[in-house]
Amino acid sequence: MRAIAANNPLAEAVVWGMTSTADTASVRSLHDKAVTLLRLHVPGDPVILPTVWDAWSAQLAADAGFAGLTVGSHPVADSIGKPDNEGMTFADLLARVPQITGAVDIPVSVDIESGYGQEPRRLIEGLLSVGAVGLNVEDTVHSEGGRLREPQEHADFVGALRAAADEAGVHVVVNARTDLLLKKIGDETDRVERAVSRLSLAAAAGADVLYPVGFHDASTTRRLTAELPLPVNAIATPAEGDRAELADLGVARVSFGPTLQANLAQRATELFGRWR
Amino acid sequence: MRAIAANNPLAEAVVWGMTSTADTASVRSLHDKAVTLLRLHVPGDPVILPTVWDAWSAQLAADAGFAGLTVGSHPVADSIGKPDNEGMTFADLLARVPQITGAVDIPVSVDIESGYGQEPRRLIEGLLSVGAVGLNVEDTVHSEGGRLREPQEHADFVGALRAAADEAGVHVVVNARTDLLLKKIGDETDRVERAVSRLSLAAAAGADVLYPVGFHDASTTRRLTAELPLPVNAIATPAEGDRAELADLGVARVSFGPTLQANLAQRATELFGRWR
Repeated sequence: MRAIAANNPLAEAVVWGMTSTADTASVRSLHDKAVTLLRLHVPGDPVILPTVWDAWSAQLAADAGFAGLTVGSHPVADSIGKPDNEGMTFADLLARVPQITGAVDIPVSVDIESGYGQEPRRLIEGLLSVGAVGLNVEDTVHSEGGRLREPQEHADFVGALRAAADEAGVHVVVNARTDLLLKKIGDETDRVERAVSRLSLAAAAGADVLYPVGFHDASTTRRLTAELPLPVNAIATPAEGDRAELADLGVARVSFGPTLQANLAQRATELFGRWR
Repeated sequence: MRAIAANNPLAEAVVWGMTSTADTASVRSLHDKAVTLLRLHVPGDPVILPTVWDAWSAQLAADAGFAGLTVGSHPVADSIGKPDNEGMTFADLLARVPQITGAVDIPVSVDIESGYGQEPRRLIEGLLSVGAVGLNVEDTVHSEGGRLREPQEHADFVGALRAAADEAGVHVVVNARTDLLLKKIGDETDRVERAVSRLSLAAAAGADVLYPVGFHDASTTRRLTAELPLPVNAIATPAEGDRAELADLGVARVSFGPTLQANLAQRATELFGRWR
């Protein structure tokens, strides 16, 4: 992991618009929380960051003893009644997140899809303003017809997020995601190679964690964790995933994507079936 | 049920601030939805109105084919990270409800606790502005130390809500609740009698449905449905409640209170247990 995580020049740090002593304390608190989150990413001993969508689901996860949380765009969109894939706006997301960060003390990372067409500085400012200390950013540009960003273009976006976070004085944990494997883009023969290449550029640009999202076989996951230069995020379903197996494969972080909410949806539907 | 439900003078109806043709259409649409909800209340053939808290849970219930929904204060408060018992404000509730009414076409009734210290006209105006066509109102006044309203005082509040709804031109389905049985207030010997007396006053003041909330034995429920002058709402848990049994007891409406969310919380906690 980068030295920057522990050595950020906090004394000079300001989040835009934060200038008072109280605001400096707030920046310090956010930075500490971000560093705490970053340090949880240990290849082979993965941190489990359940993917939640509201204060209720967040509180349940915190009560269960998890050390951090992820906020997923798909479950949040479902919960506020908007489509996933940036059917909600960044403002919609920012209205929901403080209800979550206000309910739990543990670090919270937020899925910002591909950035909702916002400038990186605005994204970082918005996330910090609601107490989030990490983010996922994917390379599918929903605001531009769902095209995949070019590899260096995605890396540049990651780099701009990192620069904005540095300027704010908080080492926001940047999880760079590629949808290349999930969407099975291009030839299968070199797809993993292309995912590794793409995420390696994002790593060089300042990412902390790399997320080749998808449900992969063991050999693919093992290859990804071996070849990628930073801690790797794997998706798992809460009912079938296996922590020991993911640890063995070298994963550093596990999140649930939309699958925790989907599992509870199935349970609700079963219960509703009793009343029809 | 009252004739007013079907004979409201829609042509003259306006919701405050609604004066255009489109607004008149909106009032008509809300009134039609309210009447649809009201007509679902059939003693001995109860309507099941699952108690939801966000667009996700609402959509699941609508997809399962239910004819209407209730929004519960406790689950909404949990979902936005505020305490129940009016730990959230009416504004908090009004921020959440349109996400629900926007996601489903079926009638939605909203639990307004004891009214959040708001005037009845403001409560009706607020509910209609977010597309709700029914309400629960309880007699525990959270904004005044949790005291129980006097029987006639509660009836007067119900009457003021009815008058405000009439003025708006929408027969908002008013479900008058008493917490007397739930909180076991006063002597047990005449407690059911006092609940019947209290809710009968609310009925005379303009309620449509009566809700002596609590998990009662069969003989108590049967006595309540026999002695109360309007359709009766019973609470049930989605996993253990039995529609046929409640029908046999004369119940006209079933809702889940906080128990659907609690059931899903239990499921989430079980899933989380796999990852510790």
